[in-house]
Amino acid sequence: MGHAQSNTPAATDKTGTQQQSRAQQLMGATAPKLAELTDNVLYGDIWERPGLSKRDRSLVTISALIALNRPDQLRSHIKLGLQNGLTKDEIVETITHMAFYSGWPTAVSAVAVAKDVFGQK
Amino acid sequence: MGHAQSNTPAATDKTGTQQQSRAQQLMGATAPKLAELTDNVLYGDIWERPGLSKRDRSLVTISALIALNRPDQLRSHIKLGLQNGLTKDEIVETITHMAFYSGWPTAVSAVAVAKDVFGQK
Amino acid sequence: MGHAQSNTPAATDKTGTQQQSRAQQLMGATAPKLAELTDNVLYGDIWERPGLSKRDRSLVTISALIALNRPDQLRSHIKLGLQNGLTKDEIVETITHMAFYSGWPTAVSAVAVAKDVFGQK
Amino acid sequence: MGHAQSNTPAATDKTGTQQQSRAQQLMGATAPKLAELTDNVLYGDIWERPGLSKRDRSLVTISALIALNRPDQLRSHIKLGLQNGLTKDEIVETITHMAFYSGWPTAVSAVAVAKDVFGQK
Amino acid sequence: MGHAQSNTPAATDKTGTQQQSRAQQLMGATAPKLAELTDNVLYGDIWERPGLSKRDRSLVTISALIALNRPDQLRSHIKLGLQNGLTKDEIVETITHMAFYSGWPTAVSAVAVAKDVFGQK
Amino acid sequence: MGHAQSNTPAATDKTGTQQQSRAQQLMGATAPKLAELTDNVLYGDIWERPGLSKRDRSLVTISALIALNRPDQLRSHIKLGLQNGLTKDEIVETITHMAFYSGWPTAVSAVAVAKDVFGQK
Repeated sequence: MGHAQSNTPAATDKTGTQQQSRAQQLMGATAPKLAELTDNVLYGDIWERPGLSKRDRSLVTISALIALNRPDQLRSHIKLGLQNGLTKDEIVETITHMAFYSGWPTAVSAVAVAKDVFGQK
Repeated sequence: MGHAQSNTPAATDKTGTQQQSRAQQLMGATAPKLAELTDNVLYGDIWERPGLSKRDRSLVTISALIALNRPDQLRSHIKLGLQNGLTKDEIVETITHMAFYSGWPTAVSAVAVAKDVFGQK
Repeated sequence: MGHAQSNTPAATDKTGTQQQSRAQQLMGATAPKLAELTDNVLYGDIWERPGLSKRDRSLVTISALIALNRPDQLRSHIKLGLQNGLTKDEIVETITHMAFYSGWPTAVSAVAVAKDVFGQK
Repeated sequence: MGHAQSNTPAATDKTGTQQQSRAQQLMGATAPKLAELTDNVLYGDIWERPGLSKRDRSLVTISALIALNRPDQLRSHIKLGLQNGLTKDEIVETITHMAFYSGWPTAVSAVAVAKDVFGQK
Repeated sequence: MGHAQSNTPAATDKTGTQQQSRAQQLMGATAPKLAELTDNVLYGDIWERPGLSKRDRSLVTISALIALNRPDQLRSHIKLGLQNGLTKDEIVETITHMAFYSGWPTAVSAVAVAKDVFGQK
Repeated sequence: MGHAQSNTPAATDKTGTQQQSRAQQLMGATAPKLAELTDNVLYGDIWERPGLSKRDRSLVTISALIALNRPDQLRSHIKLGLQNGLTKDEIVETITHMAFYSGWPTAVSAVAVAKDVFGQK
């Protein structure tokens, strides 16, 4: 059971009531099929596969989100990456590395997101 | 001294003669400044920084190259990733993971590159 | 005469005064040539061509805007698509389909825009 | 049962032997999980959903592939689109429309692919 | 009358026969409307506007084509740029500059194209 | 000594105290290596190279930022471009030109940024 689990697929809370997954909360009413695929295929199957650790999956996801310039999803995945065992220093080093592969603007935008998630001024 | 080194900055071979770096060979005559930055800043400084292992740098670079659909550079970096300690299975798992973050076409193209580098039919 | 017309090129209102097109309002003072091309070429010529229905043009435009991650223009074009005969369900199904071709983050961002346009909580 | 079916998931031919799906042929040996997801989720589930016709799914897929500049996948999907009921004229009109949304270079590249698929000189 | 002209819209040759524009040759049979827009709007109107010199238009076009990774169109526009007064050194300097804004892979691919156009080994 | 200088690397003010560069202010606490590379390599070396004027470097940077849809960095670089000698008209003409190379949505977003920087209503 991994750290990613808690903030994604449906979990049962202490009182035994089923909680909605984050995907259900965000997208369930508008795009139920996409929410279901997010829970059952993306998080329920892919992220749980043993071929790559959750820490490594966070690392590759964060790299792709920096490269593709997706600040909203980067925010969630930096938080998840910290839960999955990445250190702040590794995340910042990844951003710096990405500056060379997807360009300075993607890295500068990612620093702003990381700074905010890390609670730095 | 890492595995990456040998195929990038200028190295001295057994007979003592200076060999050109791969960047020098590819770009030196046309774009000498870019070749110099590749050797001195990208490989000489960034890839050598201790904040992220060479194996992890290969992992994030490969992820970005899949996401951005850069098959030529992906080819070189899959080779380098294998030298830096990534397994074929980890690379394939990364491609499968990326299908969800940058889309099926980027993953399908990456499989074709990986298949070719791995020498599979 | 199609639904798209009313919110784009200059129209004459009931009292006979010429109204500015949306492109003129948004860009006319800053980029008059681009506003003119938007009215005369993009909306006045391309969108009016019979080779593809306005409903289909909305469908392809929405698909491209999801894939390219252009939330601001997606917002306008989801509204226009509804006017051009697309249903909410078709728009959501397109977003879900796009998750596989341009990646989950583009689809998740598009759901947020659609949800907002549809007035859903 | 749609036209798309035949060139994608595993089908049983006249003699009763199971044929490999196109995804299995292309990716099965290298990336079995991605091939499986392609057959079972992308083609077996998404493309079969009634919310959007196969003709419309081809239209949105082609639009995304033009916009994202994925010539290899565009080639396959122009062929599939013709099987799914799109006309050559609609495909060309979509490319022309896309010139305005993803830029001339993406449209010019798409014309080269379409020309080749259509067998035009 | 600029250098760009000769390789784009229809010109009348010495013997008085009308020659097809390059767009007509490449796309006319498959996508006649796109060919027409290329000749009449893109080259006939935009490139001829006095607000930016042809040399500057080549510079901005080349920058965009590097950044967006469009090697086929970059090839044509490096040739056109040389005709429009850009020097080889300025083109290479632009590629080197772009490495920082769109990432190393886009610059490395652009060097390969430039090297080939310049006829360098 | 160019106009770009003042808003980028560390400068010494009238009273002799060292001021932080803009990169240091924005990123220094979170990503010190990226801030250092921005000051020493990107602005200290690349932007100072004589092969392309600062005005031309602003022009190519602005073009790439429009094409790649990076509104935050575009804002800063439109301001810097004006300092480096570009006129408002040249910037608007570049945006209009880009509509054809990276698509209407990138140009429309860039007009919004330019309008705001120029202080136009």
